[in-house]
Amino acid sequence: MSLPLIKSKPLPTGSPKYQALVASINKEFADSVPPSLYIPQSFVDNPPLDVTGIPRACGLLTDAELDITENYDAVALVEAMRTRKLTAEAVATAFAKRAIIAHQVSGCLVEWFMDEAVARAKELDAHLAATGEVVGPLHGLPFSIKEHMPINGHYSLTGFLATRTKDTKDAMVVGILRRLGAVFYCKTAQPQSIMHLESVNPQGRVLNPFNIGLTSGGSTGGEGALIALKGSVLGLGTDIGGSIRCPAGFCGIYGFKPTTLTTPQIGLSNGGSLAEINIRVSAGPMATSLRSLDFFMKTVLAEKPHLIDPQLTPVPWTGLATKLSAPLKIGFMMNDGHIQPQPPITRTLKWAREKLAAAGADKFIIKEFAPFRTAEAMNRIRQEYYPDAAAGIKGLMAACEEPIFPLTQWIIKDAEALGPRSLPEMHAVRMARMLFQSEFAQHWTEQDVDVVVCPVFVGPACEHDTAFYWNYTAFFNYVDYPGAVFPTPQVALAKGAEDYGADVQTPLSPEDEHVRKLWAEGNFEGAPIDLQVVARRSYDNELFGALSAMQDILMKSL
Amino acid sequence: MSLPLIKSKPLPTGSPKYQALVASINKEFADSVPPSLYIPQSFVDNPPLDVTGIPRACGLLTDAELDITENYDAVALVEAMRTRKLTAEAVATAFAKRAIIAHQVSGCLVEWFMDEAVARAKELDAHLAATGEVVGPLHGLPFSIKEHMPINGHYSLTGFLATRTKDTKDAMVVGILRRLGAVFYCKTAQPQSIMHLESVNPQGRVLNPFNIGLTSGGSTGGEGALIALKGSVLGLGTDIGGSIRCPAGFCGIYGFKPTTLTTPQIGLSNGGSLAEINIRVSAGPMATSLRSLDFFMKTVLAEKPHLIDPQLTPVPWTGLATKLSAPLKIGFMMNDGHIQPQPPITRTLKWAREKLAAAGADKFIIKEFAPFRTAEAMNRIRQEYYPDAAAGIKGLMAACEEPIFPLTQWIIKDAEALGPRSLPEMHAVRMARMLFQSEFAQHWTEQDVDVVVCPVFVGPACEHDTAFYWNYTAFFNYVDYPGAVFPTPQVALAKGAEDYGADVQTPLSPEDEHVRKLWAEGNFEGAPIDLQVVARRSYDNELFGALSAMQDILMKSL
Repeated sequence: MSLPLIKSKPLPTGSPKYQALVASINKEFADSVPPSLYIPQSFVDNPPLDVTGIPRACGLLTDAELDITENYDAVALVEAMRTRKLTAEAVATAFAKRAIIAHQVSGCLVEWFMDEAVARAKELDAHLAATGEVVGPLHGLPFSIKEHMPINGHYSLTGFLATRTKDTKDAMVVGILRRLGAVFYCKTAQPQSIMHLESVNPQGRVLNPFNIGLTSGGSTGGEGALIALKGSVLGLGTDIGGSIRCPAGFCGIYGFKPTTLTTPQIGLSNGGSLAEINIRVSAGPMATSLRSLDFFMKTVLAEKPHLIDPQLTPVPWTGLATKLSAPLKIGFMMNDGHIQPQPPITRTLKWAREKLAAAGADKFIIKEFAPFRTAEAMNRIRQEYYPDAAAGIKGLMAACEEPIFPLTQWIIKDAEALGPRSLPEMHAVRMARMLFQSEFAQHWTEQDVDVVVCPVFVGPACEHDTAFYWNYTAFFNYVDYPGAVFPTPQVALAKGAEDYGADVQTPLSPEDEHVRKLWAEGNFEGAPIDLQVVARRSYDNELFGALSAMQDILMKSL
Repeated sequence: MSLPLIKSKPLPTGSPKYQALVASINKEFADSVPPSLYIPQSFVDNPPLDVTGIPRACGLLTDAELDITENYDAVALVEAMRTRKLTAEAVATAFAKRAIIAHQVSGCLVEWFMDEAVARAKELDAHLAATGEVVGPLHGLPFSIKEHMPINGHYSLTGFLATRTKDTKDAMVVGILRRLGAVFYCKTAQPQSIMHLESVNPQGRVLNPFNIGLTSGGSTGGEGALIALKGSVLGLGTDIGGSIRCPAGFCGIYGFKPTTLTTPQIGLSNGGSLAEINIRVSAGPMATSLRSLDFFMKTVLAEKPHLIDPQLTPVPWTGLATKLSAPLKIGFMMNDGHIQPQPPITRTLKWAREKLAAAGADKFIIKEFAPFRTAEAMNRIRQEYYPDAAAGIKGLMAACEEPIFPLTQWIIKDAEALGPRSLPEMHAVRMARMLFQSEFAQHWTEQDVDVVVCPVFVGPACEHDTAFYWNYTAFFNYVDYPGAVFPTPQVALAKGAEDYGADVQTPLSPEDEHVRKLWAEGNFEGAPIDLQVVARRSYDNELFGALSAMQDILMKSL
């Protein structure tokens, strides 16, 4: 009897050496799960397209555990523990159980450690009982962490099995969360290379819980699926091209990529990434509510992380409480000038535009936002991710005879064709980006908007191995603008139920044609639709002020 | 008859081709100066050690011009023009005349354009007369600009003659100053490579006005000498290793290096610098008063430069008005653990420590600040300035057969020995710096200080070709802490009048021994003594709050 796991399209396989390594890691994981938490095999044998009902239907969770995992967001959970309505032990137990169920239906985890979590929760309960005080603002909050971020005593991986390390200390941000009372209970899956929008674990792909023929996205795709399945209410991702926003969008949850150097960077992944010479990564929250994103930012920044990581800008967080002058000027970017989004995205943008307009011109002024040189930005950022022409990661793959996955091959191909960058080229690339950022900032000023609403991706969650075009997220990494994504009440309809409208029949580029072909071939039924809101670089507080104003009109309660 | 120029130690000469180029540039400069503004040849034939009296003694300035140039700082000048006590024309005339006198006694300029300045000043006067309004907060303010910063219609140079360019647009910050009403009238000398602490122009070295056997420092050394000679009240420098603070300190004026990405970066030098992949440069003011530094920062940041250069952090400037909780905790770093400063510096630090202590423990708590791994930081930053092992600048020198100057050879030698950096090495260097910055930030927290007072340099202004050790400034570039320097009433005494005290007889390192040898051999008589105050990264406002508190006790009015 082995750990049940619903699977979809198989992963590429490697040499016997590699497959033996995969098998041993899988065994180590499976051995950590008691058979009492196995879901019925029938779900694996005949999985539904939408697996989100299984955690409730499988019978493994008590009513109290269903209540804890379904009826609280992060803010409500810590409040319930602070006021002793719930114990940390009960909360840790409920989420750890639900997380391993979520894994069995989506493949979202790479490590699971319920015993450690419950033991820590008991300590927190004892502390509260003894002192009457919580240990910190996150007292008892179960917190899921992406695979590459070190947690003391657990494995991390920077995208290739050769880098698998049992860590002996926490990443700085993990340490802060721990000190504030967070309880760690699992690590979540990411893609090979951490540089594409489809996540995997050694056992297989991470499936989209709403349609297992689709991906949960990446690179923080394990978090996306886990949170959508309510096996976590708050997790931490990183984003250098869309890796928070894409999986949040694909899985119908909330996610936020701050301006770079806002949240702690130290120790975020062992060895760091060569790409960051050019493009810095940003760590940010993924959650079941907007206020949980805000709560994460407020709580972490209140710890003054800049005193330990002085790269960070010490700007006070005002977030959702940020006052903006009314009316709010909102630019809608219906397409990026390069790839027309697939029909459900355009439909949702139009729906949002109408809803906001209907709220009145005293509240919102709605504008069109003209796209800005997207193809150029995308060409550049793809080259800048791998300045060594991917020589470094090829070495890592060779070390374990790890096969290169199709989307890894896809993301390195431009840089590979260019060959390794010389230092003068590295310099030229930096100067060119500085000018591009300046020109985009002036474009933004000319458009006269406070925020821009736009797609998260060229479509809803896509089929496996087809997340090719990162335009709608990576552009905002190239210019380093903060972006948040939120779920709407809209979903993708059954295959054939809608198509590109009469006004958008002409493809904008060969890439647009490719995306139309993927639309025609795919079945996106049930995929949730998120939208993205973006603000100027460093205007993270203003972004949250704007999200606050739009919340009741556009956002879905999870 | 040619333009008079007081000279000191000659510069290295190059090939006939190079010398012909130098001669043509010198002729172009000399031709721009009317003989009516030549100083008497007697000053050149028999120059005093201290040339600061010559602008007054030479007879070329009227009483009104002496008053305008000697009795106003930048803040008072703009106020006098706004209230029509002075015309912009009179002010531009006075400073342009004094600047060309300053050049003849110190070699501080590389270009001088009085006619353009006076024409612009007349336009400003006409505007004020016609509208009753100034054009902006810098209306009529003469503003001197360092050679590498493009001014439309003038030459810039990025450290080698091969890069000499007649610019067709302003650097972004120059454009802002122009729009706010500043009047440009000269460009000031910098070193070969812009990467050492001794400035030159094609005609010769920039001399320290208080002792022409000494250098005015670098890389913003032309500004240092010009402002000390009151040929300018406010100029703009750049600092990647001490290039604002060192010349300000050597010349007894005020200077401020902000945290990087505070002031506009775009177009600051044609082509930028390879070093900035690793270490960003910071632009900041040099002036005759502390409030002028503050005025510059407030005025430029009020223009919201981040809307055009979004790399910049949009932090509001509160500067001298920043309220700090009393008592202020001041750490004195008497040495950096690597090189004991020369006697006048230690004497001045002790003097400052006593003066602040005497002000009362309700105002200041005085501590020792322990130095932190200075030698390591210096080794690293020297390597990081030239990641290409200086191949790029060697190409530039070869293009014009330009000889390499001794201090250029000195600064590239570590990087040259290492050879060009590979991309993985570039990455490792970035990661190592991030950790160093974090460890220093924690060291700072442990020391529990608000600001640190320390030397600007290992000694007062040094003799030509001996500015080897940048420790006291470059360390704070490596950790990116803002630093300001200010003049004290202290000066270096006549040769032999003081020496290392009994408590500092043991050299801390071979470099310290070298500095002691330079002390024994040199004559530093009359060199002004500045001190440096440093605050945490991004604590620029708090730094100015602390400077405000110390001002009346320690700072010299110029």
